[in-house]
Amino acid sequence: MYHAPVEDMKFTLRHLVGLDRVAAIPGMDMVSEDLVDAVLEEAGKLAGDVLAPLNHAGDIAGSHRNDDGTVTVPDGFVHAWKAMAEGGWIGLNASPDYGGQGLPQCVSAAVNEMWHASNMGFALCQLLTQGAIHALEVVGNEEQKATYLPKLNSGEWTGTMNLTEPQAGTDLAALRTMATPEGDHYRIKGQKIYITYGDHDMSENIVHLVLARTPDAPAGVRGISLFIVPKYLVNADGSRGERNDVHCLSIEKKLGIKSSPTAVLQYGQNDGAIGYLLGEEQKGLDCMFLMMNSARYDVGLQGLAISDRAYQHALAYARDRVQGTPLQGEKGQPILYHPDVLRLMTTMKAEIEAMRALLLVGGGAIDLAHGGAADDDGFLQERANLLIPIIKGWMTERSLVLTSDAVQVHGGMGFIEETGAAQHYRDARILPIYEGTTAIQANDLVFRKTLRDNGKAVRRLLTEIRTDMDDVASAGENLATVVTAMNEATKTAEAALDALLARANSPRDAASAGVDFTMLLGYLAGGWQMARAGAAAGRALAIGEGAPEFMRAKQATTKAYMAYCLPEVDKLAAKMNKGPDALATMNPDWL
Amino acid sequence: MYHAPVEDMKFTLRHLVGLDRVAAIPGMDMVSEDLVDAVLEEAGKLAGDVLAPLNHAGDIAGSHRNDDGTVTVPDGFVHAWKAMAEGGWIGLNASPDYGGQGLPQCVSAAVNEMWHASNMGFALCQLLTQGAIHALEVVGNEEQKATYLPKLNSGEWTGTMNLTEPQAGTDLAALRTMATPEGDHYRIKGQKIYITYGDHDMSENIVHLVLARTPDAPAGVRGISLFIVPKYLVNADGSRGERNDVHCLSIEKKLGIKSSPTAVLQYGQNDGAIGYLLGEEQKGLDCMFLMMNSARYDVGLQGLAISDRAYQHALAYARDRVQGTPLQGEKGQPILYHPDVLRLMTTMKAEIEAMRALLLVGGGAIDLAHGGAADDDGFLQERANLLIPIIKGWMTERSLVLTSDAVQVHGGMGFIEETGAAQHYRDARILPIYEGTTAIQANDLVFRKTLRDNGKAVRRLLTEIRTDMDDVASAGENLATVVTAMNEATKTAEAALDALLARANSPRDAASAGVDFTMLLGYLAGGWQMARAGAAAGRALAIGEGAPEFMRAKQATTKAYMAYCLPEVDKLAAKMNKGPDALATMNPDWL
Repeated sequence: MYHAPVEDMKFTLRHLVGLDRVAAIPGMDMVSEDLVDAVLEEAGKLAGDVLAPLNHAGDIAGSHRNDDGTVTVPDGFVHAWKAMAEGGWIGLNASPDYGGQGLPQCVSAAVNEMWHASNMGFALCQLLTQGAIHALEVVGNEEQKATYLPKLNSGEWTGTMNLTEPQAGTDLAALRTMATPEGDHYRIKGQKIYITYGDHDMSENIVHLVLARTPDAPAGVRGISLFIVPKYLVNADGSRGERNDVHCLSIEKKLGIKSSPTAVLQYGQNDGAIGYLLGEEQKGLDCMFLMMNSARYDVGLQGLAISDRAYQHALAYARDRVQGTPLQGEKGQPILYHPDVLRLMTTMKAEIEAMRALLLVGGGAIDLAHGGAADDDGFLQERANLLIPIIKGWMTERSLVLTSDAVQVHGGMGFIEETGAAQHYRDARILPIYEGTTAIQANDLVFRKTLRDNGKAVRRLLTEIRTDMDDVASAGENLATVVTAMNEATKTAEAALDALLARANSPRDAASAGVDFTMLLGYLAGGWQMARAGAAAGRALAIGEGAPEFMRAKQATTKAYMAYCLPEVDKLAAKMNKGPDALATMNPDWL
Repeated sequence: MYHAPVEDMKFTLRHLVGLDRVAAIPGMDMVSEDLVDAVLEEAGKLAGDVLAPLNHAGDIAGSHRNDDGTVTVPDGFVHAWKAMAEGGWIGLNASPDYGGQGLPQCVSAAVNEMWHASNMGFALCQLLTQGAIHALEVVGNEEQKATYLPKLNSGEWTGTMNLTEPQAGTDLAALRTMATPEGDHYRIKGQKIYITYGDHDMSENIVHLVLARTPDAPAGVRGISLFIVPKYLVNADGSRGERNDVHCLSIEKKLGIKSSPTAVLQYGQNDGAIGYLLGEEQKGLDCMFLMMNSARYDVGLQGLAISDRAYQHALAYARDRVQGTPLQGEKGQPILYHPDVLRLMTTMKAEIEAMRALLLVGGGAIDLAHGGAADDDGFLQERANLLIPIIKGWMTERSLVLTSDAVQVHGGMGFIEETGAAQHYRDARILPIYEGTTAIQANDLVFRKTLRDNGKAVRRLLTEIRTDMDDVASAGENLATVVTAMNEATKTAEAALDALLARANSPRDAASAGVDFTMLLGYLAGGWQMARAGAAAGRALAIGEGAPEFMRAKQATTKAYMAYCLPEVDKLAAKMNKGPDALATMNPDWL
């Protein structure tokens, strides 16, 4: 069972993102509360009615490579993909010029949360396809756009992203796959691993975007180019042509997201796969970074999504299961009334709503950055760039804990696979790894987004938080403790920033504090949004707007966030402060 | 690959537990460093050479119920059990009167860590058998001891613990299994679930200890008695007799520890299983609590063990895998030299060594409490009782994070089951659940061990920590920051204790702060032992005792613990301080 959190999404988009600001972006004037409500309601139905029921069975069945080399997805997936495609959901945030729906990122993200919460293994295909669409939109030439985008937006074809090779995981400089020019195309030879939906039977063609080297390219990341390699070549009339020389060698046996086929792909078992340059030669990494930024945002989103699914799973059990009588409670009350279960569920709810708020506000920042603004001095893009590693790092790391807590609420039943709670725990484990581990997000945050501008972007964020806290304070006296807690945490964050900047001359020290810094800013930014949400709820209550119980719940959830989650900021700052010096005394040989 | 951490165990037993104190316990005079060294070395070989190689294959194969109702364990397990039994390892801490080895708990615990680190799914059989031995020793009559103990100590027979029923997990008051008197025995009818090694083919008989109600017993936990129910009845000459009426209905499909058969057992499909009262009628829960205390200690031990195995797995990978050049490092250095990997590995090492120290010191406390001391005013038992929920709660919760970190170090490879890192992550997930969830440990700590004596036992612990820090301070100036950090954390812990005592009138508030309190005392006690270890290492270095590199590593590890782990104390105190009031505003209907 999965119920899309439509009310919380509406509240967040309206009060925290500000749909009016998004609607003011050129080309976004169709965005209205009515439209967004309708989109969320419809998506919620598809997610709950069609995708969610396939989640557990898909985990058990898995995807398989057959003896003839084809790959079969779990029962029901082909039908579900068709339903998603026919609903126009694949290209929801894609350009209408080639069949997309043109909705802003903040709305698309809310919808994508539903797909990944209801069935992450399935929804990965859409995530990768949206990534391919995005890359083609940005760097494809007119012919490429016309050839591939309508088919991808319609879901007839799907997309993949081919980076990793056995010897080159995080280190793309070590890539070996070769692309040799041959007339208007290239011949691609090499092996790629960990290719999500690298082969399957849900679509008639698969558009692989592949990183490879041209023969005369320099060594290292500068010599990498990006290529379009379709599974089936495309005829001049746009129809599907001959089979290309790319084949699935095997499907990985994974800890989680088992329904999704993670393929080892061999390019060029025979003459080499035919590929087409996407963007400029030796600019492959720039293109890939574009896709990666978008993919990192989406993986952060998956962290939120799987956390909410696990939360809903645990909540249903906690409302149903009776064990003993809760302290100071009544006989027959379910375990939800036991203080520690209530604490766990409340903390999960607080953190999930904080994540959702930050994710959608981050989506809004991307929309604004993309749409531009007359008086923007680069701040909008800076903000989007700053939030992406925080969203990816914080939300995926926390999804490990939240899906674990959901298992814990189930007690012994949580450890039995049939219950389904364990699947979320397994599924979540990939999130802090793929699209750049948490350490890679932290490096991005520390070196590119903090040290490079001497802390300007982070400081602007902290300033905005302080300004917003003045506004929150004005929303009611009952928010005084919230504002105090947030102001103290912001001060702690500023000191941590200063300490990090002071370590700029020792990249190793700065890097070793990076994950703690990422988590610190995640918790702080989550608190920022929860404080804003608490204030908005209070104002709504005061003027009788919205459902009063929802608003009271939001106020209590805000308090819970400050009590249970925000104290992490101080701890992380203490670790950042003391950690690097302690680490410097550790000889790796002593481990 | 698994290398038993023999050197760290020796160091800990010698410097932190104090083997001389243990050897002074009546009946323990055979304990010497030489004996302990020999025991640890031998156990380490069996664990590394025989048990560890079966771990991954056992996970894949799993245990299975056959069509004829028998249960088959993975290949190699029968042989390994024989090797363990023939080595005399089953009854290592059991009384020599019935074939045990009579070694103290602190040494037995070090050995048991090796079994669970090398193969947790396998070692569970020994854990349960030791629990049965312990119960029989304490409450069995002479005939029962003579009948069962030699066979259990020799490993010819194994033991189980039967508490849970579908409707009665944590709430034992809801048990329904019936025991009807019939001559010198009882007829047992009912269903038990989650019975670890409830059926298998490693031994010729299985001795089930079963909680059940007698016909006239009062409702609730007071009406429960404990019974011995052998799978095969025992003939007068001690040989194996007729099959008893207890049968395995199914084996659970679990997230982890898949090699161990977790059985649903049906007692009395026909006339009822024949059972014998163990201890007094209606005192079953007291007996079970005895076993549970021992089992809880052992599960805490499993948390340490699986963390160390995961750590060793990650370390081997981090020393081998090359990806890019570490910052300020050299080309070709493996990922261990990347700052964040070094941070993760160092933090894991620090926490594992802290856990090991606390576990063995706790084992020593149990030995001392059991052996008594002329001038003991009950302090020894009080200390042992206080440490058990902390050991179980803290070490099992942390094992989730440490096994997760070990997956993270592997990157994408960690998510592929073949690598083996994911197995530890899955295996660990049961630990904070069975033998009482973390919330149950917290309730024990808060209500029985803290509020009941108005904080006396906890305060005595804090006083001892302070006294020990004076001693640590005298060991060298380089420990000044360690002592300062520990003294501040102890002060914070005392304030948290006072705040908890102040909430004594609101059991719900106290209970909701319980898990945080458990974790707080865990981190603090871990720091206590690491500070002592750092001081002992410094003193050893000063007089040229032991391996200098080991001592220097211990000093660096102590510093790392203070930097990366101890800051949790402040955070947990903050949560305890603010949490209950925030939680009181949350209506369960709002979740």
